[in-house]
Amino acid sequence: MGPGSQEMMTQQAKDALEASDVIVGYTVYVELLRAFYPGKEFVTTPMRQEIERCRICFSLAGEGKTVSMVCSGDAGVYGMAAPMYELQQENKAYQQTELVVLPGITAANSGAAVLGAPLNHDYCVISLSDLLTPWEQIEKRLIAAVQGDFAIAIYNPSSHKRKDHLKRACDIMLTAGASPDRACGYVENIGRDGTKAHVLTLGQLRETPVNMFTTVFIGNSKSVIMKDKLVTGRGYQI
Amino acid sequence: MGPGSQEMMTQQAKDALEASDVIVGYTVYVELLRAFYPGKEFVTTPMRQEIERCRICFSLAGEGKTVSMVCSGDAGVYGMAAPMYELQQENKAYQQTELVVLPGITAANSGAAVLGAPLNHDYCVISLSDLLTPWEQIEKRLIAAVQGDFAIAIYNPSSHKRKDHLKRACDIMLTAGASPDRACGYVENIGRDGTKAHVLTLGQLRETPVNMFTTVFIGNSKSVIMKDKLVTGRGYQI
Repeated sequence: MGPGSQEMMTQQAKDALEASDVIVGYTVYVELLRAFYPGKEFVTTPMRQEIERCRICFSLAGEGKTVSMVCSGDAGVYGMAAPMYELQQENKAYQQTELVVLPGITAANSGAAVLGAPLNHDYCVISLSDLLTPWEQIEKRLIAAVQGDFAIAIYNPSSHKRKDHLKRACDIMLTAGASPDRACGYVENIGRDGTKAHVLTLGQLRETPVNMFTTVFIGNSKSVIMKDKLVTGRGYQI
Repeated sequence: MGPGSQEMMTQQAKDALEASDVIVGYTVYVELLRAFYPGKEFVTTPMRQEIERCRICFSLAGEGKTVSMVCSGDAGVYGMAAPMYELQQENKAYQQTELVVLPGITAANSGAAVLGAPLNHDYCVISLSDLLTPWEQIEKRLIAAVQGDFAIAIYNPSSHKRKDHLKRACDIMLTAGASPDRACGYVENIGRDGTKAHVLTLGQLRETPVNMFTTVFIGNSKSVIMKDKLVTGRGYQI
């Protein structure tokens, strides 16, 4: 689905929805689509029921229906592409279903566009959610990202349960050698009403509360703030 | 522009082209657009003249024209977004131009969709082009990516001048601790005629010649090959 609006989806994705009998997804995202695809059957499941949602897709497909499983951003970035393949691998009955992934614009790239050009050289995408990933693994990746001097896009910087994840992540990056002056930014509500971008240093980011609808960008050691933009150069002589 | 075809562009990008007086870009990409936007003025410059291309945009904009600078994939991923901001920062006359970046689908994500779900957990994007980046920096990033156990998308795995970059990169990752059995894949001609995906191990990838229209994917330590797909799980219990 990309960041949310119809104009940020590809024609390929819109055509797939148009060609579907059923559209399946997380309640919030499906509601964004409902008005544009009247006459379709919609099936929603709440958060934390992702695998059940995948099973519903295969089950409906098994009835001969064409089914679209929608994800926000890109289905292949913290989305449902992998679990769909894993389920299909595990269940013989599901293997008669043809499974196709259509790409979308993930928040790293849609957020980057709002901020200017924070990922214009080598970059990492890291989620701070420890629901499915041990925190030690996240920590290890943050350290490696700083050691490799990557620009970084951070997903899920905050949740209801763990409001201090971003602060902890900043401390890990500072300890790994990132300067408190490192150029950073964050974008709220990408592609929806109330999109808002901010630029600041890593030291300031550490003290900044962000909500769960935020994508955070950490520059590499050469990134610069230009007015309200965060820019990571490719290395051209200007 | 995304990977190339009109159906993989967002409506937002197509509307911007429609609203432009001039479309500027690298010759090959502009040719893909020409038929769809008749009546527009087109300006192309060959490869290696990227900064000149940016200056042309600002110059035309200074004449009061609305100008689109097109990039393949996402303008913010090894694209022209950063140099445009850098030029604007450097030249006062350019600062009267309003500069807006529109995101597109980059090869990491469009290629991932073809291969299944290779980037479905934390990932890095690394270019092997040493035209603008010292090879030592590329090496450092490959090592860090393996140490952080990221899935990796590799851009520019080969060029006319340096055909052994991918082999060298594989050797660096193997030395850094990635197993020769690591699940990998690559995609040729993403989003164009002749799209072709391959799955193989890192050991096999080392021996595989790839061309410059290829994006390579290295799984993380838990990625698996499922028939002709490369899948990096999110960690769900299936």
